[in-house]
Amino acid sequence: MKVTLVVFSGDMDKVMAAFNIAIGAASMGIEATMFFTFWGINVLKRPNPPSKAKGFIRSMLSMMSPASAHKLPLSRLNMLGMGPLMMKKLMKQYKMPDVPEMISLAKNGGVKLIACTTTMELMGVSKDQLIDEVDKLAGVATYLSKASEANINLFV
Amino acid sequence: MKVTLVVFSGDMDKVMAAFNIAIGAASMGIEATMFFTFWGINVLKRPNPPSKAKGFIRSMLSMMSPASAHKLPLSRLNMLGMGPLMMKKLMKQYKMPDVPEMISLAKNGGVKLIACTTTMELMGVSKDQLIDEVDKLAGVATYLSKASEANINLFV
Amino acid sequence: MKVTLVVFSGDMDKVMAAFNIAIGAASMGIEATMFFTFWGINVLKRPNPPSKAKGFIRSMLSMMSPASAHKLPLSRLNMLGMGPLMMKKLMKQYKMPDVPEMISLAKNGGVKLIACTTTMELMGVSKDQLIDEVDKLAGVATYLSKASEANINLFV
Repeated sequence: MKVTLVVFSGDMDKVMAAFNIAIGAASMGIEATMFFTFWGINVLKRPNPPSKAKGFIRSMLSMMSPASAHKLPLSRLNMLGMGPLMMKKLMKQYKMPDVPEMISLAKNGGVKLIACTTTMELMGVSKDQLIDEVDKLAGVATYLSKASEANINLFV
Repeated sequence: MKVTLVVFSGDMDKVMAAFNIAIGAASMGIEATMFFTFWGINVLKRPNPPSKAKGFIRSMLSMMSPASAHKLPLSRLNMLGMGPLMMKKLMKQYKMPDVPEMISLAKNGGVKLIACTTTMELMGVSKDQLIDEVDKLAGVATYLSKASEANINLFV
Repeated sequence: MKVTLVVFSGDMDKVMAAFNIAIGAASMGIEATMFFTFWGINVLKRPNPPSKAKGFIRSMLSMMSPASAHKLPLSRLNMLGMGPLMMKKLMKQYKMPDVPEMISLAKNGGVKLIACTTTMELMGVSKDQLIDEVDKLAGVATYLSKASEANINLFV
């Protein structure tokens, strides 16, 4: 039994749901792999990346995208950032891990984190802008071969 | 053959799509299980819940969340509630069931409805605020063991 | 090994992700089937459809929906259409196909495109409003029987 998750969304709530499933799987001894694509790539960005995206459109995209897992928006009730702040406070109050903590828990459990190369090319994100926890940079072929071995394959 | 659906979204259109698949499966004799998590928990709320969420943030979350399956927003063209009203009118005109009717159809077909305990804790939703149609309160481990027996596992 | 994708979303970014997976699968010799439902039906509309939706609500829905695969919005940073324009420019710059080109690539690779009949009825979309590339009009039973043969089943 294996699990794969395509993390397309960069919304904090959806990303948390994906990590909950991956961490849950890992704790049950199930191999889990997460593919971060499109807005999901923001989850894997370093808080202070060494370099910047090149080109006007990429720079604008970069400017308008969350800087890292610490600054993800909510899919609903984002309210200019108030929603995520409130959600984080709630989570802290109930001793629930936030996304950066979930990344650590996932890694400790053996969850594999893969960054989508097509997204990196499109968005102008380079390897040195990503956190060290990333296991691999890969494309859709790698995803499909992993997913073909799994029977729980989700798109988040 | 089995089907599981993680209903993360609380949007009427997405929730309807999830129920369509579950009800379709049930009518073909396929076992279907729906896990309601995060915004999806709103689908399972009673129209007039006996108690209220405690704490400032939870109260605000509760206040800004749809009260029940009767009042879900649309993922697009919500237009301050006009969209869902129009959609419901269209559905009535074409004799399509709305979400509360879909819950009945699903239950009659043997679809299992599970409420996510982590979400309930986070959002301050108690058991007595949920509709009677809920079969079980459970966490990610229950989801994963159900999904591991199924080959159609979707995240909505 | 087979792949099915429910394309519920009509957002350009999500639709592109779905096509990337389907085209990737096809290029690896994996049978892929895409079911376009709800907002996803907009992907399959002709740029200049011969007829119009009937009834007030359907006409409004039709008026507010993207006319075809050429005019899909983004799920984030749509910015009244500026986002999709920028994204398309970026994609062109990096020689990535846009959605209409992806439809051709998918068809050439043998990907099956299915339009959801329930959605067509609800939204008042007729067969002659859809592009020739559509292989079939079908409902949830067809989806479920296809998905039951596949182990990579995603909801986008």
